[in-house]
Amino acid sequence: MFGVTVRDHMMVAHSFEGERFGPAQRLHGATFIVDATFRGAELDPDGILLDIGLAAEQLHEVVGELSYRNLDEVEGLPRNTSTEVLARHVADRLAERVGSGALGTEPGRVTALVVTLHESHLAWASYERTV
Amino acid sequence: MFGVTVRDHMMVAHSFEGERFGPAQRLHGATFIVDATFRGAELDPDGILLDIGLAAEQLHEVVGELSYRNLDEVEGLPRNTSTEVLARHVADRLAERVGSGALGTEPGRVTALVVTLHESHLAWASYERTV
Amino acid sequence: MFGVTVRDHMMVAHSFEGERFGPAQRLHGATFIVDATFRGAELDPDGILLDIGLAAEQLHEVVGELSYRNLDEVEGLPRNTSTEVLARHVADRLAERVGSGALGTEPGRVTALVVTLHESHLAWASYERTV
Amino acid sequence: MFGVTVRDHMMVAHSFEGERFGPAQRLHGATFIVDATFRGAELDPDGILLDIGLAAEQLHEVVGELSYRNLDEVEGLPRNTSTEVLARHVADRLAERVGSGALGTEPGRVTALVVTLHESHLAWASYERTV
Amino acid sequence: MFGVTVRDHMMVAHSFEGERFGPAQRLHGATFIVDATFRGAELDPDGILLDIGLAAEQLHEVVGELSYRNLDEVEGLPRNTSTEVLARHVADRLAERVGSGALGTEPGRVTALVVTLHESHLAWASYERTV
Amino acid sequence: MFGVTVRDHMMVAHSFEGERFGPAQRLHGATFIVDATFRGAELDPDGILLDIGLAAEQLHEVVGELSYRNLDEVEGLPRNTSTEVLARHVADRLAERVGSGALGTEPGRVTALVVTLHESHLAWASYERTV
Repeated sequence: MFGVTVRDHMMVAHSFEGERFGPAQRLHGATFIVDATFRGAELDPDGILLDIGLAAEQLHEVVGELSYRNLDEVEGLPRNTSTEVLARHVADRLAERVGSGALGTEPGRVTALVVTLHESHLAWASYERTV
Repeated sequence: MFGVTVRDHMMVAHSFEGERFGPAQRLHGATFIVDATFRGAELDPDGILLDIGLAAEQLHEVVGELSYRNLDEVEGLPRNTSTEVLARHVADRLAERVGSGALGTEPGRVTALVVTLHESHLAWASYERTV
Repeated sequence: MFGVTVRDHMMVAHSFEGERFGPAQRLHGATFIVDATFRGAELDPDGILLDIGLAAEQLHEVVGELSYRNLDEVEGLPRNTSTEVLARHVADRLAERVGSGALGTEPGRVTALVVTLHESHLAWASYERTV
Repeated sequence: MFGVTVRDHMMVAHSFEGERFGPAQRLHGATFIVDATFRGAELDPDGILLDIGLAAEQLHEVVGELSYRNLDEVEGLPRNTSTEVLARHVADRLAERVGSGALGTEPGRVTALVVTLHESHLAWASYERTV
Repeated sequence: MFGVTVRDHMMVAHSFEGERFGPAQRLHGATFIVDATFRGAELDPDGILLDIGLAAEQLHEVVGELSYRNLDEVEGLPRNTSTEVLARHVADRLAERVGSGALGTEPGRVTALVVTLHESHLAWASYERTV
Repeated sequence: MFGVTVRDHMMVAHSFEGERFGPAQRLHGATFIVDATFRGAELDPDGILLDIGLAAEQLHEVVGELSYRNLDEVEGLPRNTSTEVLARHVADRLAERVGSGALGTEPGRVTALVVTLHESHLAWASYERTV
């Protein structure tokens, strides 16, 4: 099984609802370093799983939809935009793009995705799904 | 599948028994950077797998039991406290804490654990288990 | 010349005023990884420049005053809380603490400070000053 | 399940054939940081999965066969030595060495390998296989 | 004194002339992670040393002139394109751009440059100069 | 001014004397990631400040004298082998080697040294001196 990963980042504001979140209930922010891994069992005739340049572009577009925003005001996101929720969000948007052919891969080439968001040097979260 | 990881570290002394360990048979030491990943398929109603602050606290306690110690003299550890052995030790202690509810997760929320110990910039070991 | 560095971080929201800032004029946020370096020419009789635990505590307090906040609403900060401005802010607060003896160093032991704030894996800023 | 990882690197020249590779069709080069993970379910009587020194040596030899070379001229490699192809190449060579006993592990101790090649701070690829 | 750093990278082929270079006399290659630090004593009225976006663009252009090339065939470079030589080359090109106003800074704002090129996780070189 | 850095590491045991060291008074240990930077204003006729392979070898020898040891029992070290003390020790040993010609540089080529020891992902110390 092959995996190809590209890294990007986004800088966002948000807040959390729920007493357990303590000071994170206040409006604050984060730089999320975003790693997207595309998995598949077979390489194409050019010897690659996918075009890493296209993968980086697609990730940049997905991340760009959230970048420099207050996520509390972005439609389509749940109230608490935890690192887990955002990892799933990015993975789901990338899976749609894989499905639509935007990554230039024929159906079945990419079979799974893992997206990891690093919120600091001490904590990160990931979401893994099939495509 | 979601994964949430927190990082801590511990600084310990130890030695190894067995000729194959060469100079590591002598009393020496290590900083272990410890990454603990908690896995689960579903987020809770607040949109998180678990309280990352609680996870960090629990890891800190587990790591604190070994910190600033000569592991050759800590009861309950095998003779050779290899990076693999210590990764399993930390994972097992965390699994007990998940089981006892110390991480604030209801039963079944966290289904697996991976603990990785980095002994240097050139080598690390991990242990993965179900909870 | 010796240098001792401790690392911490803060997660904040803010926005910038000025067209050149483009999308960063919107409310967004950042995780700043904060490295504080204390410099001095001589070690004390215990063989250290300063107590690294105290240094970490003091940095944590300084960073804690800004953590989980919208910096646009924190009094005493300039309108644009750029990475440069925040590096200087943290350095100035630490210099006051060095001066007041909060780091446990006698006068003249620590002669300079460098504070570096990493805003992402691609950009960081620092501020260096005497104490 | 245990995993033990060692890191090495190689510095190589190569080029790609195919219009989609754009400027990478030209002869250029890369430093590949190479992480090899050995997996197995059980530790040996000494409390290790394998001798990490031997693992590092074997990886160094495998990587050394490609180091400081123009991969376009190395026999036995496909035309396009993508990061994916090279990850598989290194994994396959290591699997042979595990099989031949060069890592000092009895049959069945190491059951799988993952090799990850980092081509930059923004992109990496991995290949996972059984042994 | 402030410093602002941006990171980029380039992937190049090259070889060295001289017996002391051993296997590096052969055509091989490297990924150079390139960090460019701009230094200055005063912030501008917007609270920044320089526009970090412009700095990143200018570095990307300078690095782009060498990217995906065989440096042995690039005019204007010395025979041995060591990491030191390339660090100086990038610093000199950036200094010209600072001087020409391409970074949007008035004369005297940026007073020094440091460029660091990482050739692997084990070695890097830097060049520092005034502007 | 040029700088060339090589990285190595050592794994040691030690303890500290003095109440302020708290639990670090107990025998414990550390992995120190050791970065040695050699500085000089001019490159030699081959376009390098020094032979990076020789620099790595010399650092490896210096670090090797302390590796896999209990520093409390190594002669010639002060009672408290703080990160600062060890950074100075490594720098002084390297300066002697530069002076003796072991790095293959003629007198005056290398004018200064900086040695940084990382004791964890959260703390490091450095020592800078002329040669």
